[in-house]
Amino acid sequence: MGTDHRRDDRACTGLPPPLPPGFRFRPTDQELLVHYLARKTADARFAPGAIRDVDLYKAEPWDLLPAAAAGRDDNDGEDGCRYFFCARRVKFPSGVRTNRATRAGYWKSTGKDKVVVAPHGHDEGGGPLGVKKTLVFYRGRAPRGEKTGWVMHEYRLVPGNASCSQTFARGDQVYKC
Amino acid sequence: MGTDHRRDDRACTGLPPPLPPGFRFRPTDQELLVHYLARKTADARFAPGAIRDVDLYKAEPWDLLPAAAAGRDDNDGEDGCRYFFCARRVKFPSGVRTNRATRAGYWKSTGKDKVVVAPHGHDEGGGPLGVKKTLVFYRGRAPRGEKTGWVMHEYRLVPGNASCSQTFARGDQVYKC
Repeated sequence: MGTDHRRDDRACTGLPPPLPPGFRFRPTDQELLVHYLARKTADARFAPGAIRDVDLYKAEPWDLLPAAAAGRDDNDGEDGCRYFFCARRVKFPSGVRTNRATRAGYWKSTGKDKVVVAPHGHDEGGGPLGVKKTLVFYRGRAPRGEKTGWVMHEYRLVPGNASCSQTFARGDQVYKC
Repeated sequence: MGTDHRRDDRACTGLPPPLPPGFRFRPTDQELLVHYLARKTADARFAPGAIRDVDLYKAEPWDLLPAAAAGRDDNDGEDGCRYFFCARRVKFPSGVRTNRATRAGYWKSTGKDKVVVAPHGHDEGGGPLGVKKTLVFYRGRAPRGEKTGWVMHEYRLVPGNASCSQTFARGDQVYKC
């Protein structure tokens, strides 16, 4: 790992300089929901160094993760920030369907949503904290887009969750298979 | 993640208290060799919080990772320390074969060793830094042991590597599939 990359990584995570080599932001699903997304929904100004505010639908996945786009795998540690906060956009003013199209393509959900349960020891231990949805990026326009290796995990708080004061905020993890 | 587990985790990694949630020791192969194993071979007293000195052959894998043994997967973040420094033991005083037996079983190598190459930007960019070997734990005695889900990655510096002053030290990563 080059020195410049390390510096970028640090600036992007907002970490203090003395963090030893090899430490990375690798949160669990629960940590993302409890420590990050719940705080974001409570205060839109919450801006942790590890998660950037990005309108994911104004960006293409390869703009979000240039290292991955260049074919460097996760293991080289140079993939930088890959967690984002993004407000949910509805497709039509009256609708509940989410618009996940970008200029070059669209994100399409795949598989079943996974319910993320509070860990033991948490106030809501065993109860649902939120939902994790997996999406794949397709180039082109639906329904004839071409599937790519770009994957996103979208995290939403469960509306009934006491820590969720609003429902529009969302946390996203983008990576490339 | 319970408060007590977080405290244990922190004590074990030697991290300063203000580290934000979700940060973990997830080093690349290169970082392990360059920032940890090379320093350990240069100075046996080097004791980073993230990597413990353990004689892996006096311990069983489930003693090293009680959380994994209890069936909790990696995603709950409670697996604690899983990187170790361990001096290499030869099987016979005159030999070069490594003795990887424990009381309950033995570690057996599997697959081909992987050469870990220095990343671009490093002094030795592109050159071999070390070797990563994968081992699986078998219960019982060779050659009739019973294969388990315990896996170890063993890292060795390449003797020709300028950062390697001794060859006996080794870094190990233990986990359970």
